[in-house]
Amino acid sequence: MSQSICGKSRIVGFRFSLYPMSDQFVDVIKGALNETDTSKVWLKTDDISTCIRGKAVHVFDVAKCVYLHAAKTGLHVVLNGTFSIGCPGDSEGDSYMMVDDVRSNEADLFELKIEAPTQFALYPMNNSGYMDLIADVVEIAKVKGTFSGGIHYASRLDGNAHDVFATLEDSFMATQEKVSHVTMTVNIAANSPSRKKA
Amino acid sequence: MSQSICGKSRIVGFRFSLYPMSDQFVDVIKGALNETDTSKVWLKTDDISTCIRGKAVHVFDVAKCVYLHAAKTGLHVVLNGTFSIGCPGDSEGDSYMMVDDVRSNEADLFELKIEAPTQFALYPMNNSGYMDLIADVVEIAKVKGTFSGGIHYASRLDGNAHDVFATLEDSFMATQEKVSHVTMTVNIAANSPSRKKA
Ligand SMILES: [Ca+2]
Repeated sequence: MSQSICGKSRIVGFRFSLYPMSDQFVDVIKGALNETDTSKVWLKTDDISTCIRGKAVHVFDVAKCVYLHAAKTGLHVVLNGTFSIGCPGDSEGDSYMMVDDVRSNEADLFELKIEAPTQFALYPMNNSGYMDLIADVVEIAKVKGTFSGGIHYASRLDGNAHDVFATLEDSFMATQEKVSHVTMTVNIAANSPSRKKA
Repeated sequence: MSQSICGKSRIVGFRFSLYPMSDQFVDVIKGALNETDTSKVWLKTDDISTCIRGKAVHVFDVAKCVYLHAAKTGLHVVLNGTFSIGCPGDSEGDSYMMVDDVRSNEADLFELKIEAPTQFALYPMNNSGYMDLIADVVEIAKVKGTFSGGIHYASRLDGNAHDVFATLEDSFMATQEKVSHVTMTVNIAANSPSRKKA
């Protein structure tokens, strides 16, 4: 791991809640977190949400892993949260920026194929060209084949969870190259009984 | 209703999901929506979320009503969504701006007392002073007595649902007087078994 890579990295955060629509919600949440290797991210859970922070690759790796392990139960579950980078004052947890770039969970996940209908919104902060940056992200999703329409205050993605998470990660990373402080809300469902027909 | 009031109004949107952590989630969601008078807002539901749009008073009235009717079941439920105002291009639903300012649901709700632990984040768009605006909102919450701490990427509120929703509404409305486009994410829980001890 070269020092130059470390020096260029910026800490990414994801504050999320996992919502299993089930009487067994405690077991599903604990199970998904236990099945996820979170050793490369700073992590703190409270009674409302969980916050993970670290290198972008690991934050997105952990996010997808938690979602997939909850979704594979077959229950209706939702991962809902906000990715952040460049938030003024965010520096705690810098030690997690010194880890390598190997995604800890990816190898365990590639066989899990789950449809991940998603609504997301991008907020590039303090930038007068932010509407253009949001339009750029829609183009990224179209190229990925996951874009399925604009809705009020958000965009919709449909597709396999791996493609959807790749779209979210690429969109977020492309935007943060142009804007220091970026946030992105995501609402990623699985196994909804009212699933929109393709 | 004076025309001058109408002319000054700006359409507010709230895209939200209601998550009952229960096998009976469909009934709880439908029940909460059915018990809420939504006649003064534009409303559209899809398989991931519901979007309501209209005058700020009615959007916040409906949001609190949906939350309280779900929470009164005693089940662990969460209302999670994003309020928006001034989003470029948002104009559909203007007819909902011509209604009066009387909150349709408030009279039914005042006897419902439920603790509403909340995490929220404010995003004033395209404004270099946005961090100061966020700090201003913390002051509003402190005066209301609901502020219970800053956390990574969000602020925490605790208190009775009526005080918490009033804090959110006042914070959002105060900010939108200074900034055209504002969004605010809210994650409002009820009846969590892992509820933080006061
Ligand atoms: Ca009524």
